[in-house]
This record gives sequence, C-alpha cells and structure tokens, in this order.
Amino acid sequence: MSDPMPFASHQNLIYLTGLAGKKPSLPVNLEELESRALEVLSPEAHGYVGGGAGKERTMQANLASFDHWQIMPRMMRDVANRDLSVELLGTKLNSPVMIAPIGVQGIVHADGELATARAAQEMGIPYIVSTASSYTLEQIAQASKEVPRWFQLYWPSDNAVTESLLQRAETAGYRAIVVTLDTRMLAWRERDLQQAFLPFLTGQGLANYFSDPAFRQGLDKPPEEDIQSAVLKWMSLYSDLSHTWDDLKFLRSCTKLPIVLKGILDPQDAKQALDSGVDGIIVSNHGGRQIDGSVAALDCLPEVVEVVADQIPVLFDSGIRRGADAIKALALGAKTVLLGRPAMWGLAIEGQAGVEEVLRRFLADFDLTMALCGCASLEDLSPEMLKTSAN
Amino acid sequence: MSDPMPFASHQNLIYLTGLAGKKPSLPVNLEELESRALEVLSPEAHGYVGGGAGKERTMQANLASFDHWQIMPRMMRDVANRDLSVELLGTKLNSPVMIAPIGVQGIVHADGELATARAAQEMGIPYIVSTASSYTLEQIAQASKEVPRWFQLYWPSDNAVTESLLQRAETAGYRAIVVTLDTRMLAWRERDLQQAFLPFLTGQGLANYFSDPAFRQGLDKPPEEDIQSAVLKWMSLYSDLSHTWDDLKFLRSCTKLPIVLKGILDPQDAKQALDSGVDGIIVSNHGGRQIDGSVAALDCLPEVVEVVADQIPVLFDSGIRRGADAIKALALGAKTVLLGRPAMWGLAIEGQAGVEEVLRRFLADFDLTMALCGCASLEDLSPEMLKTSAN
Amino acid sequence: MSDPMPFASHQNLIYLTGLAGKKPSLPVNLEELESRALEVLSPEAHGYVGGGAGKERTMQANLASFDHWQIMPRMMRDVANRDLSVELLGTKLNSPVMIAPIGVQGIVHADGELATARAAQEMGIPYIVSTASSYTLEQIAQASKEVPRWFQLYWPSDNAVTESLLQRAETAGYRAIVVTLDTRMLAWRERDLQQAFLPFLTGQGLANYFSDPAFRQGLDKPPEEDIQSAVLKWMSLYSDLSHTWDDLKFLRSCTKLPIVLKGILDPQDAKQALDSGVDGIIVSNHGGRQIDGSVAALDCLPEVVEVVADQIPVLFDSGIRRGADAIKALALGAKTVLLGRPAMWGLAIEGQAGVEEVLRRFLADFDLTMALCGCASLEDLSPEMLKTSAN
Amino acid sequence: MSDPMPFASHQNLIYLTGLAGKKPSLPVNLEELESRALEVLSPEAHGYVGGGAGKERTMQANLASFDHWQIMPRMMRDVANRDLSVELLGTKLNSPVMIAPIGVQGIVHADGELATARAAQEMGIPYIVSTASSYTLEQIAQASKEVPRWFQLYWPSDNAVTESLLQRAETAGYRAIVVTLDTRMLAWRERDLQQAFLPFLTGQGLANYFSDPAFRQGLDKPPEEDIQSAVLKWMSLYSDLSHTWDDLKFLRSCTKLPIVLKGILDPQDAKQALDSGVDGIIVSNHGGRQIDGSVAALDCLPEVVEVVADQIPVLFDSGIRRGADAIKALALGAKTVLLGRPAMWGLAIEGQAGVEEVLRRFLADFDLTMALCGCASLEDLSPEMLKTSAN
Repeated sequence: MSDPMPFASHQNLIYLTGLAGKKPSLPVNLEELESRALEVLSPEAHGYVGGGAGKERTMQANLASFDHWQIMPRMMRDVANRDLSVELLGTKLNSPVMIAPIGVQGIVHADGELATARAAQEMGIPYIVSTASSYTLEQIAQASKEVPRWFQLYWPSDNAVTESLLQRAETAGYRAIVVTLDTRMLAWRERDLQQAFLPFLTGQGLANYFSDPAFRQGLDKPPEEDIQSAVLKWMSLYSDLSHTWDDLKFLRSCTKLPIVLKGILDPQDAKQALDSGVDGIIVSNHGGRQIDGSVAALDCLPEVVEVVADQIPVLFDSGIRRGADAIKALALGAKTVLLGRPAMWGLAIEGQAGVEEVLRRFLADFDLTMALCGCASLEDLSPEMLKTSAN
Repeated sequence: MSDPMPFASHQNLIYLTGLAGKKPSLPVNLEELESRALEVLSPEAHGYVGGGAGKERTMQANLASFDHWQIMPRMMRDVANRDLSVELLGTKLNSPVMIAPIGVQGIVHADGELATARAAQEMGIPYIVSTASSYTLEQIAQASKEVPRWFQLYWPSDNAVTESLLQRAETAGYRAIVVTLDTRMLAWRERDLQQAFLPFLTGQGLANYFSDPAFRQGLDKPPEEDIQSAVLKWMSLYSDLSHTWDDLKFLRSCTKLPIVLKGILDPQDAKQALDSGVDGIIVSNHGGRQIDGSVAALDCLPEVVEVVADQIPVLFDSGIRRGADAIKALALGAKTVLLGRPAMWGLAIEGQAGVEEVLRRFLADFDLTMALCGCASLEDLSPEMLKTSAN
Repeated sequence: MSDPMPFASHQNLIYLTGLAGKKPSLPVNLEELESRALEVLSPEAHGYVGGGAGKERTMQANLASFDHWQIMPRMMRDVANRDLSVELLGTKLNSPVMIAPIGVQGIVHADGELATARAAQEMGIPYIVSTASSYTLEQIAQASKEVPRWFQLYWPSDNAVTESLLQRAETAGYRAIVVTLDTRMLAWRERDLQQAFLPFLTGQGLANYFSDPAFRQGLDKPPEEDIQSAVLKWMSLYSDLSHTWDDLKFLRSCTKLPIVLKGILDPQDAKQALDSGVDGIIVSNHGGRQIDGSVAALDCLPEVVEVVADQIPVLFDSGIRRGADAIKALALGAKTVLLGRPAMWGLAIEGQAGVEEVLRRFLADFDLTMALCGCASLEDLSPEMLKTSAN
Repeated sequence: MSDPMPFASHQNLIYLTGLAGKKPSLPVNLEELESRALEVLSPEAHGYVGGGAGKERTMQANLASFDHWQIMPRMMRDVANRDLSVELLGTKLNSPVMIAPIGVQGIVHADGELATARAAQEMGIPYIVSTASSYTLEQIAQASKEVPRWFQLYWPSDNAVTESLLQRAETAGYRAIVVTLDTRMLAWRERDLQQAFLPFLTGQGLANYFSDPAFRQGLDKPPEEDIQSAVLKWMSLYSDLSHTWDDLKFLRSCTKLPIVLKGILDPQDAKQALDSGVDGIIVSNHGGRQIDGSVAALDCLPEVVEVVADQIPVLFDSGIRRGADAIKALALGAKTVLLGRPAMWGLAIEGQAGVEEVLRRFLADFDLTMALCGCASLEDLSPEMLKTSAN
C-alpha cells in the first residue's frame, strides 16, 4: 500500500501530469470520463451502469442538489499541515472517503471487484463489498487484505442464507455490515427493460450466493451444473418485502459486527434506525437507481444529521463526483462519503489502474480544495461555510 | 380479461422482457415512445395529438410541475401484499388509473377507440369515452363490456341532442357522465392552424353526433349523403358559451348517472361545483391544449382537494406519464389519475396491443414504485411523503 | 375597414385556415414567424430589428417574465357575448391592443410604415407612429385615416423642431403624443456595432425631420441635396440629455393633445409622471433594446399600477407575443397593450397583408383565450386570476 | 495617452464603426470575442486561460450571479455631463475600471503584459501587474509610465524574496500592493491536468522571480543556465500555507505602499482584514479558477460592503463582462471593478490594439448604460436601483 498523502500540492500536480508533460490517458474531466467509460462498455452494461430509475429525474436531482449549496472559503488560515483522517466505528481512516458498494462489476471489467479491491488496497481506501458481486467475498477479501472492508447485504428472505453470508463476512475479516434498505425490489429502469437485460438472470453477480453452503442446500444440482434453477432460487429468496424494523433483531443476532443501514432519507426513518440500535446510517437514494422523482439524497442530509444528533455516524452516498461535493456533504454533517460511479468509470477503461487513478485524483482534488477553503482538518468543516445559492 | 396484478416483481420484469432476452418492440422510455409514435402519424395527426395551445407553455408546465414535488420514501415497511384498489362512485377499481377521454382516435390508428376499449377491457382499466369519438359509444361499449366505462360529454347547445346522447350512454351501460368544461371552444393551436387541420371539419370524430337520432332530425339529408351540412350543424351546436352553473340542473334532469366535472383548476370553481351537487371533479387543464400560459394542473390540486374536503372524489388529469407521477398526484389527494397521451402513443404504433403494453407498463411501474416508497395501499399515500424541490 | 369582430370562433378558425384546407403562407407559430422574417431581411436589418442591448438579457427577461405569471381560468361563465372594447383618453377602442411605435420600417419592407398604417386601418387597431419613420407623419396619416393614431416623439434638443413636429402631428389628426424617455441615446447594441450599421447615418428613418420646415431652416442645402449635413444636424439635435421633469411644461405648451410618457419602470418615476400632470404612462423597457440586464417590463407593472391608482391610464409594452401575454398584462392593471416586433415580422414577409394577418391572429388568439378564461369583458380581468409560478 | 472620454455618444458609435461602414475586426459580442480568442490560442493556453476549477461551476455561477440582479433605470434626469471619475487610495481615476492582475500573458500573445500595459496607458486605465508576469515588473512599468499601476503579490515563503519584490515594485513606481489570498496553491483545473500543462514548470511567467536578486541568491547557476533548478526553487517558495492574519505585519514592514487584499468572500474575513489594518479589499473568487462550487463573488459583495462600512475601499473582481455588470457591482458598493478575461481575449487576437479596443468598448458601454440608467456620476449608483430577479 503506497502512501497517497499528502495528496495535493505542486508535487502532486507534477506527479499526476509528469514533468515531461505526459498527458494522462484517463480523462481528468469527470463528465468526459463518464462518456468515455460508457463507450467502452457493452450496450447492456452501459445501460445498467449509466442509467437510473424511470426518467432518471432522481439521478439528475442528485447532481443538481450539490449546486444548491455553495462553498464560502476562508482566507489566511494555516493549512500547511492537513489531517484528513477520521475515526469511524473504531477504525481510523486516512480520509473520509470510501468506495460505495456496487454489484456485478464483472460486466464492467473482467477483473471486476478484484480490481476495485486491489485499487482500494493500494490507495488505503475502505471498500464496501456488495452481496451481488461477480467474485466471492472471500476472493475480494484476499485482494484487499490490509484495507478496512465492509460487507453490504441484500437481506435474503431465507434466514439460513442470511446467517451464512454474515458468518462468512465476519470470518473473512469484514468489519461492518451495510444493510441496503432501498432495493428490496429492482426498480423500473427503462434502459434495462429496453434491452431485456438483468445480469442476474444469467447468474452474473450471484457469486456470493452460488458459493454459499446454505444457498446450495436444497438445490437438486449445484449452480455450476444447473444455472437456471439456481437463478430461480435466487429470485425466490433475493429479499423479503415484509421485513420491518423489528426484524433487525434477527440480523443483530447473526453477527457481532456493527450494522449500518443504507438508504435512509426521511428523518423519521433515521429516528427509527436510532431506536433500533444500529451503529450507523448511510443517507442515500441508491444513486437515483430506485425511485424516479425522489428527493435528492443531499437535500435529506441536514435533517437526518439533526435527528441523529451525533449518536451514531451518518454517512453519505449518491452524487459525489468531485472534492467540492465531498466537502459539502461533510460540512452538512456526513462522517464519510461514498464514491460510486466514478470508480466504475475508471474500472471500465483501465481496470485496477483506472480505479486507482480515479481515487488518487479524487483525494488530490479533495485535499487541495480543503486547503483552498482554509480547512486543515475535518473539524474545520461546518454548515456555516455553505451558502444556499441565490439563483 | 387477464389479471394484470400483481403488476411488478421480478417475475413481472421477466415477463416483460422475456427470459430469452427478447427486446420489447415498443420503446420503454416514454420520451422515446412519444417521438416514435409521432413519427408514424400523418403530419396532421402528429400536430393534433402532439401539440397544445399557443406556445405550449402549459403543456410544458404540466410536466415540470411534477418535478416541483419530490418523493420521500420510507424504509422497512411491510409491502409484501399490496392492494392498489380504490372505490370510486360505488365501483371498486383494481387500481387508481383510468384512461382519459381523447377524441377522434381514428386519426391515430384505424381501430381508434375500439382498440383502446379492447385494451382497457384486457387490462381491467376503466375507460372514459369521448363524445368526439371516431366510433359510436355503442360500438365502444361492445368492445369493453366488462370494464367500467364513463361517457365524456361536450355539452351541445341543442338540448334534444344532449338528452339523446346521455340517454344512449345510460342505455349502453356507461356508469358516469364526465362534462368537460374547459373546451367550449377549440383553442388557438398553432400546429393545427398551420396545417389548416381540424379533423371535425371533414366529419372525423363526429360518429356519436352523426349516429344520433336527435342530431339527424332536421337535416335535409343524412350525414352519409351530405357530410358538409352535417358538419355545419355540428358547428352550430357543438357547445353553448352561455352555460353557467345553474344550467347543470338540466343535465341532472337528463340522467340518473353520476355527473363529474372535468377542467376545474380554481378552488372557487371547485366550491361552486360542490354547491351545484355534482358527484365528482377532475382537476385538469386538458393537457395544456386549451390555454397557453395557464397554471399547471398539479399545482392546483392541493387547494381544490382542501376545498372539496372529501365530500366528493377529486380526480386528476394532465401530465401523468410514469408511476411516480401518479404517486405524487394521489399523495396530494387525487382519488384516481387519468392517463392520456401515453395510451395514444401505444395506439399509434401497435394499435390495441400498444395500448395494452403501455397500460401494463404503467401499472407495473406504479406498483413497483409504491412498494419502493414503502406504501402497500393507497391509504399509505399522503402529502407528508412529498417535499418541494429545493432547486 | 373590415369588422374583425368577433375575432375567434369556429367560424374564425375556418376563415383562417379555409375549409378547403389551404395552409397559411405566414407561419402561425410566433417563434417560427420570427425566424422566417429575420431570414428575409438584410443582415443589417436582421440585426437591427431582431437584436437588443448588450447580451440581450433584458430582451430574454421580457419574454421569461410572462412565464412567471400563470393564468387560473374560471369555468361555466357566460362568455357568449364578449366585449373587448376599452375607452382610452376619450376614445373608444375595439380592443385593448395598439401597434407600438417602431421606427425606420423602410428597412423591413419597402412600404414601411404605410403598410403598417394600412393594416392598422383595415383591422381597426390604433397605431402609434414613430418620429423616426421612413415616411412622413402626414403620409402615414393619409394611409390610416379612420383609425386612432398617436404620434411618438423622440424629443429634440431644438425647441423649434419639437414645436413644429407636435404642430404637424396635431394638424394631421394624431390624437395623443407619446414621449419616449428611455432612448435619449442609442444603446450599446452589439449586432449593429458589429455590422457598423445605424440606419440614420444614411438618412433612413429621418423623413419626419427632413420634411420639417424648422429642421430645414439653417441647413445650407436641403437634405435632398446634402444628406451628410442633414444627418449631422439630426445627430446634433436628436435629443437633449439634460431634460428633467420640469421641462415637460414646454411640451405641454406646444400641444393640446394628451401627453403619454413611454419607458417608465420605477414606481418613483411613475409618481413623478403623475405629479407632472401627464395623461398616461407606458410601462416599457423598449423591448430590451436599451439597457442590458434591466428589469423585465412586466415585473414593474404591478407597482406602477399601484402608485398610479387609476388616476391616469397605464399602458404596457415589451414582450407581448400572444393572447395570453396580453391577458396577463391587462390582469395586472394595464389599460392596453402595445404589439411591436410581431407586426414587423409580418411586415417583413408580406408587407401590409402580413401585418394584417399578424393582427388578425393576435386578436383571434386574445379573444378566444379570454373566453376560455371565462372572461367576457376586460372588467373580468384582475390580478386574482394570476398565480405566480411555483417553479 | 489619448482622451477616451466622453466614451459614448453618437459620435462614439460613429467612431467605433466608422461613418464609411467599416466593420470592426474584433467581435463586438463578448461571447463571440471569447470563442474567437480561444480559437487562436494553443490548446494549452486555451485551457489555461479559458478554464476554471473542477466542473467550472464557480466560473458559471459568477456570470449567472449578475442575472440575479436587475437594473431599474430612472428617467428624465440630467445626464448631459457625466463624470465617471473616482478617487481611490489617494489617486483620482478617470473611471472605476481597472485591469485585473493576470499572470503569464506571454502564452496569450508574444507581447504579453507589455501589450496590456501599453493599452492601459493609451486608455488611461490602471493596471494591476501580476507577480507571475512573462515580463519583469520594471519592463511593464516602462510600458505604462503615466497610468496608475499596482503590483499584485503571490506572497513567497522566502521573506527575502518578498522584501525584494515589494522593494522593486515601490522603486518602479507602483502605487499599491495587491496580495492574493485565494491562490496559495494552484487549484484542481481539469483542462490543465488533461494537457499536463502548467506554464510555470517550464519557467514561463517567472520573469519577476528569475530577475530577482534575492531569488537568484543561493542558486548554483542562474536561471538562464539552469531553468530546471530555478523552477524547483520557485516551487519551494511560491507560497506559504501557514500564513495567518498576523503575518500581514511583515508585509506592512516591507513597504510604505497601501496594501489591498484580494480574494475575500466571507464577511468575517472582511472584518479580519479591517482589523489587520489593510488599505483595501478586493471581493473575488479568482474568476472561478480556484474552488469549484464556491459562491459567486457578486453574491458576497453586499455583506462585505456592509461589514466594511466605508472604512476602506472594497473593489470587485470576477465575472465583469459588460457595462451593466460594472453598474451592478458598483451599485452594490464596489469602489471600482476589475476587468480580466475580456482584456485577454483582445490580447490574444490583436495584441495591444485588441486590449485597447476591448477597454474602449467597455468604457463606451459603461458610460452609455450609466446615462440610460439616469446616472451622471458614481454617486448616483445605489442598491435601490437593483431589483432581484423574480424568476
């Protein structure tokens, strides 16, 4: 694991671009990076990775919400020595940046989650691994041994499978369980429907299920021999639409790891999460992939932070693209931010090296912008440094 | 009539797209569906169906108004068993979705209203039949026997014709009369004027008049033999600009069916509708086809709902495109929503099958999004789940 | 003079488009009409007629301001007999629509103001004739004998010329003097500067000056023989930047006609206009042609109307394109509206017939939209029927 | 030095465009000027001059913020004799317009800052010279002897170099020191990173350093012989991230010139600037080149002006393009405005003549618009003449 800190400085610029003027192969501009990445993907993966629910209004609202808040920088502060570290659930992180859980990365690049995990390891960035990975959680753990890893759970309706997955995550050294609440059903995604594409229907992204002893039990033939039946079983247990807050007790009984709920937007749900005794919350709308015309995740952050009142950490996901976006979410009270799509764009184009480069740039941009805002540590961030746009 | 419920689920997705990966012929994306449909129409029908009044500001405002409200979904609620049914004017409907009255569908597809009626029948969706249909109300009734049908009235200035039309509707099993208030004159529609196109001037969309005994009375020759004179008669009696609230008594005297007023926007008009003893209201601006620069229909809904205070049902029309739009209108107090243009796009491209597919998708999207919002029935919807956009 | 009333009805639609389906040669859509018109003009006239000050932000703001107000129509009102007439400065007008003063129409069409005047005459619409006309005020009066005509004054710094112009207007039967306050200097218009085009520098638009005895006095040679010197004289007396409110007494002493001030935006100026004893005010920003980044004229109307409190009529100019725009301005308190650019687009393409057609359509659209709003006369218009846009 | 006053009038228009109708070679429209200029630059200079930080949201916000304020002009005021002069730090300026400090102009045009200085001299406009110039401050002083010049300081971490630079500026007749606070590190500029371009890395823009005795001291070889080492030294001393308000005392001890701080946005920083005894403040966000998603500079001006309460002058920079923009900033309390990018566009296309032409036009537009607003001097400007946009 290299030491990517301090991320930004003239030295960093020189590193990035090279004194010899070597131009970077990966587009630096995020919008250009996205379109380049979507170009290299198959039409199906393009639609799946690039799209969102319905008219994609939530996806757009997520991005637009960042423009609603504007940064008011402070001058003449000592920012020579910056410390971007943060303690989260007992672990000290180098920076308040984590890799968001994204499933079925095998459709983005052959190395899939392994490449992402290796990049996370190289950059010292915690990685939240999706249940719906193209590789098993054990393989991914192997690829990022030293970096903090969390396991994201799509909560199956079959308790034995749930228990088994959580057990395996614990054994493989994952340090927290992220339960995704907002995706108990797959949403109305017009691009996927148009292409009649759902990767899971051909078994893609089901490695954690197919390798699971509890899942395999009761199948007539192992998934390797009869993928169709395995897929049908997955469909039958993917999730339980009847789960309510009380059912979290079962999850708690399955693991000693901290439990973090992902997909909270309404402050009343944040209150219920608190009451249910979980260890953290991720404000997220799944990147606009679930409900069309829903509220932007960032717009929900302030009220959730207010309700939670520092009793447990509130993390933020959905729409983070650049350093300034992270600063805004952190200033509004997020403990860390999750970076999702940009990592996939790097993965699509250059595999592990692409993810690394995207992370490196994000950290450089973030650190640099922190300094320009007059902030030497995360404690310097507060809502007072944001102004709502007059326009 | 097939049972389209439950509409959404993985099974539904698979049904829609086919396990074999067969791509749907009808565009899933609504905006793409619209442009494809407009392409297959004649220039005249294209302008008539696709256009609105003046600069089409109201048409655009209708769509934009949905973005003003954003959905705040709730997590961890039991949505395993969803019931989308609603009771309306004594009839239980499977879902709060109805097909809006749209005239002269013969310019969209040769099967016109018959195709729409058959699709309504197949999907179990109530259909509001327009006075200005290309087929007679009896033919349409024949095509959708089991599904609830309402008859929409452009109120003629000739009382005998009015009585006769209402009588026929009652006889043919229509269950309510929808009186359109906002279209006593045809609006300034620049696309139609540019093409010198008004379908009625060549007798299109006048089947209900031409087949009406009261209308035929007094004509020198029947419409079959002298269409010009029949059209002139239609022009002379199309509507009466002097009608006021008191005149509703006459309509009431003509029929035992419930009377629903369509085109209410101002809460003071809603109050007068209440006072006049009608049985329901449809908040609508005729899809932006009548007044340019008018208020968006959705923006009027909350105040009308407040004035009406549950004494009679308030329905919503104008701008519904996707499931999330329906959720917003229902959350703001509408009892049902009317789906208009999207059905016409399906009709234009694939006739009855196209309308069916559009309805099936709409219901799937609606049901799915309900579940993702944490709502298992219409009772779970309320204004509290909406947030006005910060941007 | 034909009777263009009643403007709208099915009959009108039929008239406009022809039962035989003859398509109109002039684009009905105003935006298309504009681009077609600009195409037929020379590049210089295109820039002069189509452009505005600076970045043209005010020009755009004028149009956008209409979208800020949305019409709330009322249903079930008796609108069978509509009376759009209004009494203004002692004259009864058929409708609250006037043709705005626009100079140098000779660059738009060879017939220039004569064509416009004849169209005004034909349609019974009052015409405000610009000082800077391509034809003399007497020629224009001749072309529109029966219709009310007003004379717009660019107030010269030479009192003798001022007196002479006002005298001539009175003699020629003009019924009011409109003094333009906002154009004592020509603005920074980038399109004109780019083309080094100012029509007046070659004598275009100076017919009223060149034909004026007081102007001709003191010239060594008459303008017909030495246009250069005449232009220089015009430049020297075009306007007096030192005029203040007190100087209006001089204008008052020159004419018995009512004096109307054009270009008032600030309510304090409206107050001063009242105090100075003028007979009317026109809220206008010269169609966005004078100050870039200025307030939209419509946004100023409510406060000016409030200050003036019905003591003198307040007219509105700047941004009127369609019937709904007129309704909004009138509902906010304007007595009449001035139609400018659209008339020029008609003039450019088809001369007198084009202006007539534009006026006919505008009146039809206005009358029709009035009826659809539930308004049978101008008294039915009020600010209560407007809602400010939620978006 | 020619007398460019009075800037605007018919005479001025004629001057600009030529009675003979000669069209100007430099685009008059600012947006067209910009794109033309960017075309003639190398891709690297194009990106460096045309771009901003990150997604360039701040750059766009700067421009958009001007549309938030709209001018409310006053009529019938005596504006025949306009006096646009202002006294600033003891010097009377012809107009409240200054040329903003922009570095490394050698990449824009071979004559770089010399051309700009000569244009400033010709037009009587004060010029703020950047530390990072392509020519030395003494060469630039030579090129603009009579016009007030200020020296902008990127504050080095090496006190000897700081002292030496300030000493040289004082000796060369510069009248004030502008300390830029917002650029102690170069920002995350995606266009430059993409092209691996930073002019300073090849020594461009370092003329003031390389010619400085204190800088040269300690180098093994002079920059002329070993540019690499000189660049590395520059990188090591470019700025000190640990400077705080107290450190201003050192600057004060180095020079008798007034000290003006550039880059203040937060009113609390304005307060601290006041307390630290500086002589002026420039509200600026470096034209959106430092922090992406930061507040628009203009939006910060009113509060800073309020805090400073006329104790020291507040200047404005960031987004000024046209006369109306200057009027808005001045009306909100700025003493003068700084014009930046437009001068560079003129420089790119036509060198000194281009800068002159841009300045001449800006002054003409400004003076003309002042008159049209009813303002004869800067005292006539006040916040009351601005209205916030309703849209």
